[in-house]
Amino acid sequence: MRNDLLLLSNSVVHGRDYLEHALPEIEAFLAGRRTVLFVPYALADRDGYTAKVATALAPLGVTVRGAHASPDPARAAAEAEVLFVGGGNTFRLLQGVQRAGLLEPVRRRVAAGELAYLGSSAGTNLACPTIRTTNDMPIVQPASLEAFGLLPFQVNPHYLDPDPSSTHMGETREERITQFLEENDVPVLGIREGSWLRRTEGTLLLGGSTGAVLFRRGVSMERLTPGTDLSFLLAITGRFDDRH
Amino acid sequence: MRNDLLLLSNSVVHGRDYLEHALPEIEAFLAGRRTVLFVPYALADRDGYTAKVATALAPLGVTVRGAHASPDPARAAAEAEVLFVGGGNTFRLLQGVQRAGLLEPVRRRVAAGELAYLGSSAGTNLACPTIRTTNDMPIVQPASLEAFGLLPFQVNPHYLDPDPSSTHMGETREERITQFLEENDVPVLGIREGSWLRRTEGTLLLGGSTGAVLFRRGVSMERLTPGTDLSFLLAITGRFDDRH
Repeated sequence: MRNDLLLLSNSVVHGRDYLEHALPEIEAFLAGRRTVLFVPYALADRDGYTAKVATALAPLGVTVRGAHASPDPARAAAEAEVLFVGGGNTFRLLQGVQRAGLLEPVRRRVAAGELAYLGSSAGTNLACPTIRTTNDMPIVQPASLEAFGLLPFQVNPHYLDPDPSSTHMGETREERITQFLEENDVPVLGIREGSWLRRTEGTLLLGGSTGAVLFRRGVSMERLTPGTDLSFLLAITGRFDDRH
Repeated sequence: MRNDLLLLSNSVVHGRDYLEHALPEIEAFLAGRRTVLFVPYALADRDGYTAKVATALAPLGVTVRGAHASPDPARAAAEAEVLFVGGGNTFRLLQGVQRAGLLEPVRRRVAAGELAYLGSSAGTNLACPTIRTTNDMPIVQPASLEAFGLLPFQVNPHYLDPDPSSTHMGETREERITQFLEENDVPVLGIREGSWLRRTEGTLLLGGSTGAVLFRRGVSMERLTPGTDLSFLLAITGRFDDRH
């Protein structure tokens, strides 16, 4: 199946275990596949992170291998059936993916229906054309902000509604995304913690329990409830660096 | 005076007017200088932003000109006595500064004591060696994350203490800076809203009312009260991309 994607806003919902809230959805996404290549570059402790993921997915009968532990990560990605790209720092993750040579094989094989892609948080940012809507600190400098581009629009994971009681003067998430739209004519889907996107072929659905918010240039912000069909977003053509 | 800097965490304190909280400090910093070249690239509306700054600084008898309105911004920076770099989106600001050719003349003239530098928020990020400790969204891709480097360490403006009651699972500021230190052996000074840094020659003082937090690799986080002498930080040699 082409473009077989499950993109989680986040891996841990408050008060629950790692990936616990999404385990039934991950099981359906796996559809019987039993091996997962995990990309742990977003965190510093790659071995520890891979072990944590292996433990979380063990109830599904899945074997997890870390891409970092392979002598040739690009080849491992060229042979995998499921890729899981985990969260952490998006800039560090993208730099690791670039250096490991994963961008091209993953793009090609996901489009060809040979590789299923599971992303969480920073791993969901990487499924977008660029990481320009990450919430993370640019602790390292990737060669470019271009990512896998498995969707034609941008996602903002961990989307957070403005807090009217806040006295902090830093920009709200909504203000940050509005600034993105000043520079880029590309829709941004803010998915709240506990939400996910499921793409299969030409269909895109909003899953989970918390909903999402869609920002488009020249259009009022739209609030979306769980279950919304977002397939229309797969047909858009965004324009980056198109100053308003 | 060499390295004559005033670096504000932020331009607006909750419930007060733009720059109001820091006006006496700005007046002391100006020391009778009456012309300011303003760098508005962090916001989309450069004319509107420049007008706002002109209004805010009018009580000090200062004339404000926008760098964007000059036919040759680099030359304007080479002739100015005071540069004010305002807040907004740090990536957009740095891209604008790079494209206008401001990096070299500002570095040289601040070090030579020919130009005084006032920064707020993103403008404070730009005074650091890089913008790797900004809180902003990477809405555009600057040619590099390298900035003016008027200090040898990194500042995190709008520093926010962790909220123990939060159920949001995105990283706290402290966690983000800890990740920065995993990749870079460079101190990070988190300055809370309402705080600022004042550098004159080889002296660095923490001003304002709210204090700061210092993060260094291998050292417990240190809480700093207003008035703390931070001159020792001017002697450090940081190492970027020095994975722990």
